[in-house]
Amino acid sequence: MAAKDATTAAPIDFYFEFASPYGYFASLRIDRVAARHDRTVAWRPFLLGAVMKITGMAPFGSIPVRRDYFRRDVPRLARAYGMTVTMPDSMPMNGVAACRAFYWLVDEDPESAKHLARAVYDAHWREGRDMGDGEAVAEVATNYGIDREALLAGIQEPAVKQRLKDETDAAVAAGVFGSPYLIIDGEPFWGQDRLKEAERWLETGGW
Amino acid sequence: MAAKDATTAAPIDFYFEFASPYGYFASLRIDRVAARHDRTVAWRPFLLGAVMKITGMAPFGSIPVRRDYFRRDVPRLARAYGMTVTMPDSMPMNGVAACRAFYWLVDEDPESAKHLARAVYDAHWREGRDMGDGEAVAEVATNYGIDREALLAGIQEPAVKQRLKDETDAAVAAGVFGSPYLIIDGEPFWGQDRLKEAERWLETGGW
Repeated sequence: MAAKDATTAAPIDFYFEFASPYGYFASLRIDRVAARHDRTVAWRPFLLGAVMKITGMAPFGSIPVRRDYFRRDVPRLARAYGMTVTMPDSMPMNGVAACRAFYWLVDEDPESAKHLARAVYDAHWREGRDMGDGEAVAEVATNYGIDREALLAGIQEPAVKQRLKDETDAAVAAGVFGSPYLIIDGEPFWGQDRLKEAERWLETGGW
Repeated sequence: MAAKDATTAAPIDFYFEFASPYGYFASLRIDRVAARHDRTVAWRPFLLGAVMKITGMAPFGSIPVRRDYFRRDVPRLARAYGMTVTMPDSMPMNGVAACRAFYWLVDEDPESAKHLARAVYDAHWREGRDMGDGEAVAEVATNYGIDREALLAGIQEPAVKQRLKDETDAAVAAGVFGSPYLIIDGEPFWGQDRLKEAERWLETGGW
């Protein structure tokens, strides 16, 4: 099957949690993967903790042996990719403010919303900064021409709070249970380990 | 760092659960990966359910949305690899008999134990057969010159039952929490998705 036309094909849904380094790794590659196949990407940050509560999964990091592995795997993958990561002191970060800021922006200015998401990921995972409160998010947002006070007010708006709840419910309804999670023409791919398969799916139209 | 000498380097520990198709995929490649780097592999079947109980993780398949993904991901990976899998009617299979049969054999005849493990995996994941009882395991074992009655008696020996408990405890002590799980010179790799990194680790001595 030929690659779909970007003007008619649905965007690739890219669900991610800011506290997820695997989401971060995927965020650095997903737009280029899509562009190679004339596709666009709808970035969809969500709260994995809320999704896990709804689906009955164990909270992120609650299993010590998994946490130990995670702390080894993430820097090891980064070194393999030739990237820098700094493991944040407090994990998992609270993604509420960053998600709300994203959804406050996205309808009016989707490019800035994506820039902001990238900036939050970069500050958290490359620099190891805690991005868990509105002030930290607003500080990086100013580098993208976003007004600090407007953002701090925006993330307190009831409609924005509701939007994040609705987005999280929509992620659950779409079957999302981890980060990153891609949906390409209805086909789900969980984990940055599946980016290779996702790209092959785009190339071939599925198998 | 040069590849280690197979005569002195410790074997690669390959932990796997028979009910895990990702363990099955890894089992088809791990010996060749090791051989390319003059290494041997110690196959170590274990009971993932028992490990999950000890570490406090949610039982395999207990989360519907993950189960749905799994049922899609496994055949999709198999098709990508050009392999056949048949999803078994009842999942997860009970691996107790297969694990006991393996440990009953392994000290005396490690090659036959590995053949038996491969045969159980093949019957379960390629053919979709339920290999959850001793009779089914004994039936495939006869193809490898293993006496049916001896195996059925062997898997009831108290020492063999204890051996499986000890191996499961040893897996937990080694930090194992999933299948497949490789340990190479102390370095853990969880999931068949990490085989590429594991091979690079063997090539380079680590990074």
